[in-house]
Amino acid sequence: MPRTNLVNPRRVPRFAGVSAFCRYPLIDAVEPDCLPVDWAIYGAPFDTGTTYRPGARLGPRAVRDESQYVKPYHIPYDLTLTDVLSLADAGDAPVNTFDCESNAVAVAEFAAGLGDPDHTRLLMVGGDHSNTLANLRAVNQRHRRANPGAPPLALIHFDSHVDTVDVTLGERYSHASPFIRAVEEGLIDPQRMLSIGIKGPLNTPKDLDYAREHGVTMITYEQWKAGGSEGMERIDAFLADLGDADAYLTFDIDCIDPAFAPGTGTPSIGGFTSAEALALLRHVGRAAGAHEGRGFRLLGADVVEVLPDRDHAGITALLAAHILFEILCLDALRIRNQR
Amino acid sequence: MPRTNLVNPRRVPRFAGVSAFCRYPLIDAVEPDCLPVDWAIYGAPFDTGTTYRPGARLGPRAVRDESQYVKPYHIPYDLTLTDVLSLADAGDAPVNTFDCESNAVAVAEFAAGLGDPDHTRLLMVGGDHSNTLANLRAVNQRHRRANPGAPPLALIHFDSHVDTVDVTLGERYSHASPFIRAVEEGLIDPQRMLSIGIKGPLNTPKDLDYAREHGVTMITYEQWKAGGSEGMERIDAFLADLGDADAYLTFDIDCIDPAFAPGTGTPSIGGFTSAEALALLRHVGRAAGAHEGRGFRLLGADVVEVLPDRDHAGITALLAAHILFEILCLDALRIRNQR
Amino acid sequence: MPRTNLVNPRRVPRFAGVSAFCRYPLIDAVEPDCLPVDWAIYGAPFDTGTTYRPGARLGPRAVRDESQYVKPYHIPYDLTLTDVLSLADAGDAPVNTFDCESNAVAVAEFAAGLGDPDHTRLLMVGGDHSNTLANLRAVNQRHRRANPGAPPLALIHFDSHVDTVDVTLGERYSHASPFIRAVEEGLIDPQRMLSIGIKGPLNTPKDLDYAREHGVTMITYEQWKAGGSEGMERIDAFLADLGDADAYLTFDIDCIDPAFAPGTGTPSIGGFTSAEALALLRHVGRAAGAHEGRGFRLLGADVVEVLPDRDHAGITALLAAHILFEILCLDALRIRNQR
Amino acid sequence: MPRTNLVNPRRVPRFAGVSAFCRYPLIDAVEPDCLPVDWAIYGAPFDTGTTYRPGARLGPRAVRDESQYVKPYHIPYDLTLTDVLSLADAGDAPVNTFDCESNAVAVAEFAAGLGDPDHTRLLMVGGDHSNTLANLRAVNQRHRRANPGAPPLALIHFDSHVDTVDVTLGERYSHASPFIRAVEEGLIDPQRMLSIGIKGPLNTPKDLDYAREHGVTMITYEQWKAGGSEGMERIDAFLADLGDADAYLTFDIDCIDPAFAPGTGTPSIGGFTSAEALALLRHVGRAAGAHEGRGFRLLGADVVEVLPDRDHAGITALLAAHILFEILCLDALRIRNQR
Amino acid sequence: MPRTNLVNPRRVPRFAGVSAFCRYPLIDAVEPDCLPVDWAIYGAPFDTGTTYRPGARLGPRAVRDESQYVKPYHIPYDLTLTDVLSLADAGDAPVNTFDCESNAVAVAEFAAGLGDPDHTRLLMVGGDHSNTLANLRAVNQRHRRANPGAPPLALIHFDSHVDTVDVTLGERYSHASPFIRAVEEGLIDPQRMLSIGIKGPLNTPKDLDYAREHGVTMITYEQWKAGGSEGMERIDAFLADLGDADAYLTFDIDCIDPAFAPGTGTPSIGGFTSAEALALLRHVGRAAGAHEGRGFRLLGADVVEVLPDRDHAGITALLAAHILFEILCLDALRIRNQR
Amino acid sequence: MPRTNLVNPRRVPRFAGVSAFCRYPLIDAVEPDCLPVDWAIYGAPFDTGTTYRPGARLGPRAVRDESQYVKPYHIPYDLTLTDVLSLADAGDAPVNTFDCESNAVAVAEFAAGLGDPDHTRLLMVGGDHSNTLANLRAVNQRHRRANPGAPPLALIHFDSHVDTVDVTLGERYSHASPFIRAVEEGLIDPQRMLSIGIKGPLNTPKDLDYAREHGVTMITYEQWKAGGSEGMERIDAFLADLGDADAYLTFDIDCIDPAFAPGTGTPSIGGFTSAEALALLRHVGRAAGAHEGRGFRLLGADVVEVLPDRDHAGITALLAAHILFEILCLDALRIRNQR
Repeated sequence: MPRTNLVNPRRVPRFAGVSAFCRYPLIDAVEPDCLPVDWAIYGAPFDTGTTYRPGARLGPRAVRDESQYVKPYHIPYDLTLTDVLSLADAGDAPVNTFDCESNAVAVAEFAAGLGDPDHTRLLMVGGDHSNTLANLRAVNQRHRRANPGAPPLALIHFDSHVDTVDVTLGERYSHASPFIRAVEEGLIDPQRMLSIGIKGPLNTPKDLDYAREHGVTMITYEQWKAGGSEGMERIDAFLADLGDADAYLTFDIDCIDPAFAPGTGTPSIGGFTSAEALALLRHVGRAAGAHEGRGFRLLGADVVEVLPDRDHAGITALLAAHILFEILCLDALRIRNQR
Repeated sequence: MPRTNLVNPRRVPRFAGVSAFCRYPLIDAVEPDCLPVDWAIYGAPFDTGTTYRPGARLGPRAVRDESQYVKPYHIPYDLTLTDVLSLADAGDAPVNTFDCESNAVAVAEFAAGLGDPDHTRLLMVGGDHSNTLANLRAVNQRHRRANPGAPPLALIHFDSHVDTVDVTLGERYSHASPFIRAVEEGLIDPQRMLSIGIKGPLNTPKDLDYAREHGVTMITYEQWKAGGSEGMERIDAFLADLGDADAYLTFDIDCIDPAFAPGTGTPSIGGFTSAEALALLRHVGRAAGAHEGRGFRLLGADVVEVLPDRDHAGITALLAAHILFEILCLDALRIRNQR
Repeated sequence: MPRTNLVNPRRVPRFAGVSAFCRYPLIDAVEPDCLPVDWAIYGAPFDTGTTYRPGARLGPRAVRDESQYVKPYHIPYDLTLTDVLSLADAGDAPVNTFDCESNAVAVAEFAAGLGDPDHTRLLMVGGDHSNTLANLRAVNQRHRRANPGAPPLALIHFDSHVDTVDVTLGERYSHASPFIRAVEEGLIDPQRMLSIGIKGPLNTPKDLDYAREHGVTMITYEQWKAGGSEGMERIDAFLADLGDADAYLTFDIDCIDPAFAPGTGTPSIGGFTSAEALALLRHVGRAAGAHEGRGFRLLGADVVEVLPDRDHAGITALLAAHILFEILCLDALRIRNQR
Repeated sequence: MPRTNLVNPRRVPRFAGVSAFCRYPLIDAVEPDCLPVDWAIYGAPFDTGTTYRPGARLGPRAVRDESQYVKPYHIPYDLTLTDVLSLADAGDAPVNTFDCESNAVAVAEFAAGLGDPDHTRLLMVGGDHSNTLANLRAVNQRHRRANPGAPPLALIHFDSHVDTVDVTLGERYSHASPFIRAVEEGLIDPQRMLSIGIKGPLNTPKDLDYAREHGVTMITYEQWKAGGSEGMERIDAFLADLGDADAYLTFDIDCIDPAFAPGTGTPSIGGFTSAEALALLRHVGRAAGAHEGRGFRLLGADVVEVLPDRDHAGITALLAAHILFEILCLDALRIRNQR
Repeated sequence: MPRTNLVNPRRVPRFAGVSAFCRYPLIDAVEPDCLPVDWAIYGAPFDTGTTYRPGARLGPRAVRDESQYVKPYHIPYDLTLTDVLSLADAGDAPVNTFDCESNAVAVAEFAAGLGDPDHTRLLMVGGDHSNTLANLRAVNQRHRRANPGAPPLALIHFDSHVDTVDVTLGERYSHASPFIRAVEEGLIDPQRMLSIGIKGPLNTPKDLDYAREHGVTMITYEQWKAGGSEGMERIDAFLADLGDADAYLTFDIDCIDPAFAPGTGTPSIGGFTSAEALALLRHVGRAAGAHEGRGFRLLGADVVEVLPDRDHAGITALLAAHILFEILCLDALRIRNQR
Repeated sequence: MPRTNLVNPRRVPRFAGVSAFCRYPLIDAVEPDCLPVDWAIYGAPFDTGTTYRPGARLGPRAVRDESQYVKPYHIPYDLTLTDVLSLADAGDAPVNTFDCESNAVAVAEFAAGLGDPDHTRLLMVGGDHSNTLANLRAVNQRHRRANPGAPPLALIHFDSHVDTVDVTLGERYSHASPFIRAVEEGLIDPQRMLSIGIKGPLNTPKDLDYAREHGVTMITYEQWKAGGSEGMERIDAFLADLGDADAYLTFDIDCIDPAFAPGTGTPSIGGFTSAEALALLRHVGRAAGAHEGRGFRLLGADVVEVLPDRDHAGITALLAAHILFEILCLDALRIRNQR
């Protein structure tokens, strides 16, 4: 019996109906058999944290619309996601577009109230990357209530940018700063932070100093593509060290090349293709041991920085929906194979 | 106290959240105080009835998304729509894109089951114009259960085309034929049918014969614009004759000029501006007596032929959402002023 | 029996097939019953004459594609165009995009060879306005072979610009200059030239001097809109004076407001709506006496400056196709009503 | 001799070069003969004040690009703008996208430093409407230094919205609130405030209360279109009362219908056409007496809410550039005709 | 002497003229020296077989327009296609958009009548994938008239989907079902069917059962990319087994990643790049032995699922035109090298 | 201390202000400390040399706008470009869109006058590829004044096309011919010309004859991708032979696949990804010895054929801006590492 009561495509065609993420039920419409919800997927339609082009506040809506064609069976994993996990669309957080700091408070508070606080994990769809701080706070709050004194989370981070700028034009809570704040707040452990897909150009070499000094494992797209000891081997070593740590996965769509993800606010040239990104996510699962039911345990995740007004034919939002699906399948694979 | 429990813009910003028509509640989320629902608004995402460009199946979703900025207070009527009427989004009909005839059956069956059959009226968002036959069937079924032997409905019809073609490429149920079928089925009375905005070119003059022979009042855009005895006076006379008849209003977005409604499947040049369309709808209400609580009673309505893939910046869908709002306000005005 | 052997929409749907203007036959496929062809419609895919944005070379192809939905029956005239006139798509002229002067020679030579030189009239679809000089040359050549010593043609000119600049950046044959050249070559009579829809801003007031000094009747959009003695009355007087003169009609799509015609190379704000343009063309016919079989006789015509890469949803090309249709109907109306 | 040293189109074609507003010189490149500058035109690329779709921060750049084809000679006024006024592009203000209140301070400070403080007037290109408060502050600061105790300015306001909301989601300085703040700060006089083009729908009738209670003259689009005593007569009366008062003109592009101005953040259906807007601006000048060198004196102005990512073919930005030109011509006309 | 009388680019520039596929002659304009035609290329502008977004009916027109820049010389093969094969554009089939089953009959009947039935092979441009069944019927009919009792064809199939669903929402002839029907009708041999590029997600693992149970060789994109024994080696083995069998090649553009082919109706993320697809087609020829004049003999082919309204800059249609060219070159290479 | 006085992003945000290439100063605003300028970057907004789609005249403006997010620090080189080189935006050349030959003269004359003739090198942003001849002339003129009798330059050429056609439709100076002219004029040495990325299809095999006969090293995309002795090894050998020769680098954006560079006039399928292009440029530097301060010395360069009206989300222009940055970094790397 399925864990998720999907909207029936026989009853509501994929091109129609009120759009919820991947046609998962709205959280109030989850059937009793499917409770408690494993993952609450919610939107954080806030983009004032951006430093360049705004518009990611419309990202959650666009991802919902394009996700209607994301079906539940994952061929390479031979896995029907919705048979393993109970998933629900929890709507959008009550953002405050006028202030980054109070927005982060509001989003975290909303997220903290979703589903079963002892069970439900949180997947946020942005919105800009500043919302990640809010989701990290909510995830940690839940985690530490159950596990007082739990260490900061490991972070698996796909991005063009390291996002550890201290202050941008006077603002400490922008989309350039989520991870410096998260480290300061003890939400993540920089020594167990892996940033993949970094590319430039940057303002100055100093932009990488914080990450370097705090032990973040940074792998540029160029290093990844070159492979070997600069690239995949470092990823594998990181994951091996990680073991079954509690972790958070954050995916900034701008690590993907603009040909595949034109709809984003701070694009830079020469990133992952979509196929490379999917292959890398699957490699991460494999290297971590998900196929054997082992590896990091995801307590939260996000996909951010989809900007629909720069998109065309919805390809960026469709890609984001696929990434969301891959992340959930990664979790489901580990869980299914534990059994 | 409001009749409609609108989604709270303080809690869910207009640019976010699961989109329902104009932020009215999903029909399962209508609060008890707001029952029974006065109008159920639903989508008919079917476009196989088209004879040219398809894609209107995505119309309901687009109208939902763009309708988020349609607020409830109507300035010229000094009317808060949601204080007068209980409104709800009833989702989308389970269309059958492979067959026009069986689709019409499926849509009508879905519509017939919405809300309180003795009270709730039906507003359909297309989809192509062939879906109107289905909504007309559902509306009549409800109406005649309560009023056995009630006469066919009057029809107020905004369109570039008369849509009374008998058979198109062997198909009797296409978007060119809803009104010939509706007359044959006794759903509408052609002598009380007003078609406004007709424009060409046409294949042959014979395309107008059915309407002429059955007494339809046809007013071309050119005649309307010329005004006087060819235009508004005929509209006024029609409405005066109509009195407080039971009526249905159908709005094909292609009566609007392509500059204002590029997103449609069979565009032709030289139609209404948006402002003219709004003014005309308001004139219809005034001429019918809605300001005095009199005039035709709407039992059903629709807005059809929005094709998002040809739209830009959502302007066609936004226009459709405003038309939907105007139609509901027209009804609310008559009701409010009866009081 | 029809004069034009239209492509059968039952056999080839409007959304398909090799596109010819309005589905008229390719000139080599005109059936014997339809010979000689009354109007040869051809493209002049040349745009090097532009002074701002290029791309109108792709205009003919776009107009062909969008014209597939332009049907033959004209409602206000109660006229089936293809019953009155034999029409054919004569393909595109072999333009020379590297040189304006030699292009004009090549286009004129091509046009001069189309259809029956003693009978077939020439309607050119641009390309930029410099191509009009070529069509005027071809039209005059035909006309004067049959009527040696015939006077220059009258010109009915819809445009934002007067297009009588002598030299632009050293070039005498650009899209800013067709009418100064045509006057110099004795192709048109400036005293019988009517320029409607002029609007600004301009570089200097001197840009209007040539037209003023040579007796051109210029009517700005603002004057036309104001109506009365500055506007329509001057048009009517011009047409009355014209009588049944031989004339040429040229329509630069940039006289239409950019909302209706975004796809053009030198747009300016505040022009005709599509509906105003259609109404004006119909008024011109009425004022000239076409309804009584009287008025100027069109020997040639054109629609120019459609730039598809700036268009959206094909609305500019669709408009151009409708204008082309209106021009032909204007001619057909006079001819039909002469009978 | 011209007052403005325009970039020479013979030297730098209109489709090329570094874009400055209408090809006016950058303020540091104004030639000595053209000093002091009459109007400094600057951008305020800030859009965090928006309540719906962001992106107007890119408006100034888009308006610059599209303004390259806006030439200096105004046909109806028979006026070469740059012969009368010295104009310059003063670049963009150093906005703070993270905070509305401090942004308004930064923009005002920047504007206050432009050109000759005793002479140069300020035209701001937005950005969202919240920037108007900043420009009003700078304009008043200049004005009152020269004229201590001068009364608040009159305001001529084109908009869909009255923009007198007190607080929006906790924010007092959003694009919904510039005029309530400006009244409170004594920058404008609500009794001499004319808001034209208001349209709905609104959240509640209360949204108009502030304006009504403070004596603002509000004219909805519908009233204007109806004409007569509800429309133009009230405008004329307002302007007659105004006499030669010092005034500010603010133009929110969303008062234009979305067909003409799709690129804006809070669009609503049924506004001015471009031609109507131009005609109305010219009427305002005529009614105020500009043709006789009389009427209100503009001390500042703005054009706001252009959102390029929702635009197509640049038509909204092109329209905004024409509006900017019309406003400057209105001023030049009064000045020229005083002479 | 060329086998194909191409439209002369000196006479009709590539950006102009009536568009035929790759500027091959219309089938009625093939010169006597070029008869009989080797391949008739025709459009099947039908898309009612789609299960998600429609619009592929406009595919043939878009492919024609974009194919104008596809020239005849293939660098890697050192082959001038039109010197080897006689090619013609045979126009579009008379589709029936109201019924999938009867459409397939109509398309097959049209195709069966093209060119010389004993010689001409058939390349169809879709439209959706359901049209492939029609082309397969026509190809087989021709083949078996000359070769009674010939076995079912081999099938080389590029696609995201296996397209062997039995019934979709009651319809047996949709774009999800062409190959189950073709197997049932004995048109293709599933044991000699190679499906390359399969990717997900799918509704359920059962969607692959039919193909698995009937011996189809399926290679997912992921397997192909991984290479080796899961990927190219299986392709090579399949082709080696095939020998010089009679075959059909079908190319669904949705096997290409949406960045390269946004214009399609059922996109999924992570497919071939354009360069990978070209390289793979060339590898197929090499592995089959085309360079030595050996390998499968193509009797028919198609390129399907181009949806222009979701495309931008025509890149999907341009890609489809290149694929069409590659397929024909593959055939020409084998033929040329046999000589 | 920086060599380039960049516009301060704290003062003028990246999404705002008058756009200059990569926010380098306008050439008249270079601070004394930064003189003489090392590279003058200018636009050549001319596109009449194209043989297919025009519009590249708007390329320089688009590249300026999108380049605002190109920052100065290059991660893989660990190099801050603006610390090594003095860079300036020199505006646009006064093109002549009516004549290719005289345009080349005008552009060369403009370029020859930029910066310090004894020091400043020239980077041109197109415009079509015909402008390269002009830049090559200006570069050689400077070079030979200082080095009389210097040999023709080496040429490193990224392109889909070899661009050595003698005459196109009578024109010797089109975008198909810059390198045949440059060889004839002794500006470049064909034996030291490397053309990378060539792809087809072509009109005839003869299109490659000139290059083959004159010793050009041509490497098709297919050869490059295959690698080894056909690909990178030939590049490496070429660069080794080149030593520290004086060279020019020209980058035609159409060598990139249309998914990454849709905005170009003569696109063909199957080219470089953006990441491949960046990697190749970096490989060229490495193979030439730039990391050791050795290798060819760039005297001039260009990036051409960006056509904004076919672009979306500015991705082609953004890519061009990155290419421009990479070229400059290549030069800076060699210089920095010489020290």
